[in-house]
Amino acid sequence: MALSNSNADSIEDMHVVFGGLGFIGINLVQLLIQDDQRCLVIDNRSISKELLSSHFTDLAKIELLALDMTLPESWETIREKCGSKKIFIWHLAANSDIAQGSQTSIPDVQDTFFTTVQLIESLKYFDCSGLVFASSSAVYGHVNSDIGFSEEQVCRPESFYGVAKLSSEHVLRISLQRLQVPLWIFRFANIVGAPATHGVIYDLLLKIRQDPSQLRVLGDGNQRKTYLHVQDLVEKMLELIGFQKGGIWNLGPGDDGILVSRIVELISKHVAPNAKISFGEQAFGWLGDVPVARMNCDRLLRDTAKVQFDSESAVHLAIHEIAQQLGMEFKCVSV
Amino acid sequence: MALSNSNADSIEDMHVVFGGLGFIGINLVQLLIQDDQRCLVIDNRSISKELLSSHFTDLAKIELLALDMTLPESWETIREKCGSKKIFIWHLAANSDIAQGSQTSIPDVQDTFFTTVQLIESLKYFDCSGLVFASSSAVYGHVNSDIGFSEEQVCRPESFYGVAKLSSEHVLRISLQRLQVPLWIFRFANIVGAPATHGVIYDLLLKIRQDPSQLRVLGDGNQRKTYLHVQDLVEKMLELIGFQKGGIWNLGPGDDGILVSRIVELISKHVAPNAKISFGEQAFGWLGDVPVARMNCDRLLRDTAKVQFDSESAVHLAIHEIAQQLGMEFKCVSV
Repeated sequence: MALSNSNADSIEDMHVVFGGLGFIGINLVQLLIQDDQRCLVIDNRSISKELLSSHFTDLAKIELLALDMTLPESWETIREKCGSKKIFIWHLAANSDIAQGSQTSIPDVQDTFFTTVQLIESLKYFDCSGLVFASSSAVYGHVNSDIGFSEEQVCRPESFYGVAKLSSEHVLRISLQRLQVPLWIFRFANIVGAPATHGVIYDLLLKIRQDPSQLRVLGDGNQRKTYLHVQDLVEKMLELIGFQKGGIWNLGPGDDGILVSRIVELISKHVAPNAKISFGEQAFGWLGDVPVARMNCDRLLRDTAKVQFDSESAVHLAIHEIAQQLGMEFKCVSV
Repeated sequence: MALSNSNADSIEDMHVVFGGLGFIGINLVQLLIQDDQRCLVIDNRSISKELLSSHFTDLAKIELLALDMTLPESWETIREKCGSKKIFIWHLAANSDIAQGSQTSIPDVQDTFFTTVQLIESLKYFDCSGLVFASSSAVYGHVNSDIGFSEEQVCRPESFYGVAKLSSEHVLRISLQRLQVPLWIFRFANIVGAPATHGVIYDLLLKIRQDPSQLRVLGDGNQRKTYLHVQDLVEKMLELIGFQKGGIWNLGPGDDGILVSRIVELISKHVAPNAKISFGEQAFGWLGDVPVARMNCDRLLRDTAKVQFDSESAVHLAIHEIAQQLGMEFKCVSV
């Protein structure tokens, strides 16, 4: 891992994880502390000690700051806390309600892009050895979706979420290049697992918990997307920061993805055998949604070991995990 | 022109020009009122009636609103003023101090991108027949600069100004597509002419006015860029909005550009024959500057008549105009 390798002697070194109490952040921080790293977790929500204990095995290695990262004054607190420590930054903070962007651009611009802007304005005060930015396949939009999005191609995002991620990539690239600090940009496929806060599986399971007799699906079910399990994601990220110079990688399973109709089928068999299922008429779930999203993951496959779960297994496992998270029964039947 | 063609009878129609008191805005508004169009000019600076009369030949056709367009409350005023009128929008508002972006990203994010975000949030309240966005060759960055930037290629801006323009393009594209309103994105080369407020010619002339005995040039003089005269620019924009569906066009002279050292030579001969000239050592003028910036203007050449001035003539004319603007003597000598 970048920090421990580069300066193994200093016990002051730490990972600073912005958005560390989100779905991906929780999984990343847990892996880091398992690896005996110290973490400063910064998030705009606070969380009970009880919930914290349920997420992390060793609370002594974690320090928490609940701050609104869009506010300049929050960054004074962060700078004070980091002092002269050598830090490695994970920037996962973002508005996660992507579909909301069909009504207004403000949450994406504010929570995703403006947080990044505040971060780059503070970078010169940190002794930062590297930065990981959690980007998204949403930066690509519809372009070339039949042959799969590759890291070098033209980006034409179709959602404000995608624009906020892409703009963040640009300002981070410019800033870190000037400071000569390596930057890893990871463009995520759909990431699944627990503790989920949004996403197609979570949304469908919530609907079923509310009314087990029926399941109405947004869109016609023909959206095909790739899904990566969060466990694979965090392991690949740690593997890739071994590339000392940074770079851009698509992080996905590298397969053709699965259809929403198949996800619905899996959910139905395992969790809602009695639900009457109906689909919408539109080819997309919400305005700005990309119906077919394939990522070309050749670079990832070249640079790391194979992921553990393909799209179907990742979704399958995640249905089990999220059903458990929501206190719902998961029936072990053959699919 | 889009408005007059589409609805020639309605005297309520008007052009709304955001940033209409900037260098390009003044030239555009003057051309519009010469063409008997009504203009609502919105700018964050106010201006004396005297100065206004010096810029525009017919003040009766212009209404002025001095507003900070980054504030949501300003947009209530704008929406009230536009009411149910059919409007055509020109979005020229931006932070024009590009070099400042080498120190901080805030002015570009705030004045350029956040103004665009406020605009798209208000679009649904307007009866808008089309929108022109003044973008920039800065969206391209260094990529492929030897063969010339074309409209379809990957954008990798190197300045916060470039990121703010590119991000604005994306959110406008998404918003106007959803509203089915045509969008014209014009990516400007370096635009020269009067009344200048910034740019290489203006900066050099100011230095000479302050000290006619010497002229210190930022950079080594080998930056080669293309220059379009503002008169050509505004005429081409009016020509292109005849394309009813909108699109993206590079707006430049279509030549190879001229060297900064040649600009310095022209200025020296015409304005500062006695100045001792010295160049810097860096290949760029400021951090984020792109030393060689060629735009591929084939699309413009295909769709419109040839521009009147090439890079060298545009610069030559602009030196004359800006010297006059600054009250400096322009000597007519052969160059």
